[in-house]
Amino acid sequence: MAIVGLGPGPADWMTPEAGSAIAAASDIVGYGPYLERLSLKPAQRAHASDNRAEFDRGRLALMLAAEGRAVAVVSGGDPGVFAMAAAVFEAIEDMPTWRALDVSVVPGVSAMQAAAARLGAPLGHDFCAISLSDNLKPWWIVERRLKAAAEGDFVIAIYNPASKARPTRIVDAFDLMRGVKNAATPVAFARAVGRADEALTLTTLGAADPSLADMATLVIIGSSETRFIARDGAPPWMLTPRSYGAQR
Amino acid sequence: MAIVGLGPGPADWMTPEAGSAIAAASDIVGYGPYLERLSLKPAQRAHASDNRAEFDRGRLALMLAAEGRAVAVVSGGDPGVFAMAAAVFEAIEDMPTWRALDVSVVPGVSAMQAAAARLGAPLGHDFCAISLSDNLKPWWIVERRLKAAAEGDFVIAIYNPASKARPTRIVDAFDLMRGVKNAATPVAFARAVGRADEALTLTTLGAADPSLADMATLVIIGSSETRFIARDGAPPWMLTPRSYGAQR
Repeated sequence: MAIVGLGPGPADWMTPEAGSAIAAASDIVGYGPYLERLSLKPAQRAHASDNRAEFDRGRLALMLAAEGRAVAVVSGGDPGVFAMAAAVFEAIEDMPTWRALDVSVVPGVSAMQAAAARLGAPLGHDFCAISLSDNLKPWWIVERRLKAAAEGDFVIAIYNPASKARPTRIVDAFDLMRGVKNAATPVAFARAVGRADEALTLTTLGAADPSLADMATLVIIGSSETRFIARDGAPPWMLTPRSYGAQR
Repeated sequence: MAIVGLGPGPADWMTPEAGSAIAAASDIVGYGPYLERLSLKPAQRAHASDNRAEFDRGRLALMLAAEGRAVAVVSGGDPGVFAMAAAVFEAIEDMPTWRALDVSVVPGVSAMQAAAARLGAPLGHDFCAISLSDNLKPWWIVERRLKAAAEGDFVIAIYNPASKARPTRIVDAFDLMRGVKNAATPVAFARAVGRADEALTLTTLGAADPSLADMATLVIIGSSETRFIARDGAPPWMLTPRSYGAQR
């Protein structure tokens, strides 16, 4: 069984290993829109599921694999970064007989990396990745991590900034960040990178309207070293340099 | 000009976009061993340089691009993660005429993601990436970030744990971590993932011998939720679950 990262959207960002793993599978399990990206052969069976049912999807994939099917579980981005790999291994942990299955993870380009590529080099130095989803963790640990990330002066990449059920998590996060970081800190909202409706918004912590972030948005908040490089007739580049404290 | 991520080593982990960007270049600039991975056409010119000269390499690439050459700067892993993108944009920042050049970044699978794929799902939840290199930043900011990452109970991915000049940075980092995190915290040393000499070592913070880490090693230190899933006749999986505080 393979847990496969499709990358952020375009086929150009999917690795050959991911393509081979999907081609070799009899059964492909995943969130419906991810399955729609694939060109499956008539003999291949697609098992589409809702986006929120990650754990159930992992269990389904493992049940099929235990029956001897050649299974690929597909994930957008990298399956190891806020995606299917953890859900599958949680299911394996719960069911000792599944520990004997042959499971591999096929890495992919994550949404954070695609966003960074479009922006310049915002993750050019030490960074954190934090999901604001509080479906499976208490909000206090999100707050503790945001504060610690600010205290460490990391660049902060925020996944799942908002959901239909909780649209204001990112507003709460910005309120917290504004209390501890400089208002001039560069911020980027990168929406649907690699898709037709891709949109990049560059702003600052003080000026940002975080309520614009939706489920498809990746938010990057800079460190004290992050800056914009202005350009004529084009949006600025966002750079976090490799040096710290202007040692260069 | 394109700043291109080759992924961690095998061609199977290089995206089609990266392959196209290299094929379209007249001049390919990079660290020698990365250039050796590529099958260049006779008309393509390779500019090999030393690993440490990132800024000079970025300047060379920009000078060639300013002369009208079609340039690809290649990086191992993802150019946005402790690699060439930041060096190139620092050079652009220094030289206003270069801001008019057409520059794109082609993302790739990073070493951290390749290591995570081999280990299971160690980055399954919030995480930090920290480089221990103190060539361009003072050691106090590394210490501050390690402490903040522990305070936030992040999974910590450590790049550049040691160099020939400073082989003991990772030993200092472990000393610091042992003072603030549980000795039973799972730790992985992932060396040369995807290459012939790939080696994975699973241990705990208390039992680890950090002096084994070299320049080709990516170190992952778990959060309080990270655990090993034991298997018969195979190394355990490393899992950081999506839930926090056993809410699942």
